[in-house]
Amino acid sequence: MEALRGTPAEVLRRYPSPTSAEFRRIAGEVHGVDPDSVVATNGGDELLRLAITTFVEPGHPIGVASPSYSLYPVLAGIHGSPVVSSPLDEDWRPSADFAKQMNREGVALTFLVNPHAPSGTLLSATEIADIAGALNGVLLVDEAYVDFVDPDLEHDVVPLVREQDNILILRTLSKGYSLAGLRFGYGIANPSLIEPIATKTRDSYSVDAIAERLAAAALKHRDAAAETWSTVRGERGRLAKALERLGLPCVASQSNFLLAAVPDAFAGGAEMVYRRLKEQGILVRFFPQEGLRHRLRITVGTAEQNDRLTAALRSMAPA
Amino acid sequence: MEALRGTPAEVLRRYPSPTSAEFRRIAGEVHGVDPDSVVATNGGDELLRLAITTFVEPGHPIGVASPSYSLYPVLAGIHGSPVVSSPLDEDWRPSADFAKQMNREGVALTFLVNPHAPSGTLLSATEIADIAGALNGVLLVDEAYVDFVDPDLEHDVVPLVREQDNILILRTLSKGYSLAGLRFGYGIANPSLIEPIATKTRDSYSVDAIAERLAAAALKHRDAAAETWSTVRGERGRLAKALERLGLPCVASQSNFLLAAVPDAFAGGAEMVYRRLKEQGILVRFFPQEGLRHRLRITVGTAEQNDRLTAALRSMAPA
Repeated sequence: MEALRGTPAEVLRRYPSPTSAEFRRIAGEVHGVDPDSVVATNGGDELLRLAITTFVEPGHPIGVASPSYSLYPVLAGIHGSPVVSSPLDEDWRPSADFAKQMNREGVALTFLVNPHAPSGTLLSATEIADIAGALNGVLLVDEAYVDFVDPDLEHDVVPLVREQDNILILRTLSKGYSLAGLRFGYGIANPSLIEPIATKTRDSYSVDAIAERLAAAALKHRDAAAETWSTVRGERGRLAKALERLGLPCVASQSNFLLAAVPDAFAGGAEMVYRRLKEQGILVRFFPQEGLRHRLRITVGTAEQNDRLTAALRSMAPA
Repeated sequence: MEALRGTPAEVLRRYPSPTSAEFRRIAGEVHGVDPDSVVATNGGDELLRLAITTFVEPGHPIGVASPSYSLYPVLAGIHGSPVVSSPLDEDWRPSADFAKQMNREGVALTFLVNPHAPSGTLLSATEIADIAGALNGVLLVDEAYVDFVDPDLEHDVVPLVREQDNILILRTLSKGYSLAGLRFGYGIANPSLIEPIATKTRDSYSVDAIAERLAAAALKHRDAAAETWSTVRGERGRLAKALERLGLPCVASQSNFLLAAVPDAFAGGAEMVYRRLKEQGILVRFFPQEGLRHRLRITVGTAEQNDRLTAALRSMAPA
């Protein structure tokens, strides 16, 4: 808010830095990479679109693990590209021959969200390195939720980009930095992968001057955001235990949400619970698709919000 | 600046309105159209890209008048589309069979910048209506500089969109509202033309919450911007006269720049003048292409800037 209120009028009057140079310098410092390994985008969604238009010929296939972020197939559709979908196993992990499946279908770009949505499962950096190493095409690792990973795991995919020139990491300020209104995302990759995105397919001034300024401030002061991440992790553990006690066991999550299984005996099942919660002004996610329709994705809220949710669920629980 | 400083933190925390509903309501009021006739974009450049991805199959041709904005052929190239270029006549106007030329080549989208860049020439609403009426495809009228048109001309293309469903008007806040750092543009067209842009090809949250808020404030208080437009018009006339007196006659301009002819006898011609001005920290535009290389595009500055330019040119003038 200080960075916002301190924005001089001159910043609005002039065109922004076409390369978001100041943000890239700071992101480079934070992640221990060269600024040439960073590209700033108008939200993470723009990076998803740019990855497609940069690395996939129109009409050629795009790879995903299913289930995952619903925007991937939408963007593929706009590009006229079929989607090669590989189902995750029972532990929400890609199958052992995931990369082989993609290679066989001639996939030039594969999306993996890690931690996974909607389960919260985390693949280690080694697992990511192995998949990327086996892929013929580019692997986009969508780290929208990575800020919520337990720091004790020392999880860091970024060092891989030095050696592996087909890994494109997506970051966003919408989740971990509570800046969804700002529309700011960025990519981290080997400079050889960043260069065509930054100079060929990206609109010249896709990131505005205020967003760049505030994003730079957010990354500089990420200790403040890290306090929130720690609070979310604490509440995540507490909420998971409360849901477990109610008979709604959750997948072990490294994200800011929990995927809870809802038995049909519990108030008529996931969809009914979703509806009854909505009536009370409590919004959780219900996905009607195969493999998810007996579950609910519940975002970890404040302690008060989580208590209100738990109380509402308790009142629906079977006797 | 008041709208900026008054932005509450909550606006940053939450996702923005995916449709920029509040801005569209205000723009609708300002232009006398329904909000469904307006789409907000991340700068005018995003609307140019969206027009191409919405209305042109990849690889199919795109039409332009030449010379015009250098980004049109760049965006066409990214789309794999050849450019059908129709040269303007000596008065910087499209030839009488402009629409026929486009139709003959199967052009689905034609760009016209009006007032024209780099000459500042204005086509009337009637001329625009005639061209659009004769075109088989969509006509994008790029009104980036329209705010600087003399109000006595009562120039307004917007009413056409009610009857003609192939006219897409581009507006930007970068020029007339001095908000280039904000990256905010919008399209005005028949709802049937806006709908596929707004719902099919546009990224869900391409306009951030601060930009929408500030753009709405700018349009609400456009009387303040209108004072600047009036000042620019006054300086435009004064500068044109001064250049004329120096032997550098200008095309009659309705924009915030002047296209001045530079005889070779004047300090060695346009490119030399451009370089010598640059050495003095005065930036004007030199275009090395056929038809423009004996001219300079000079943006109308403040009275002081214009006087400094005039003095610098006077010192270069032939005896």
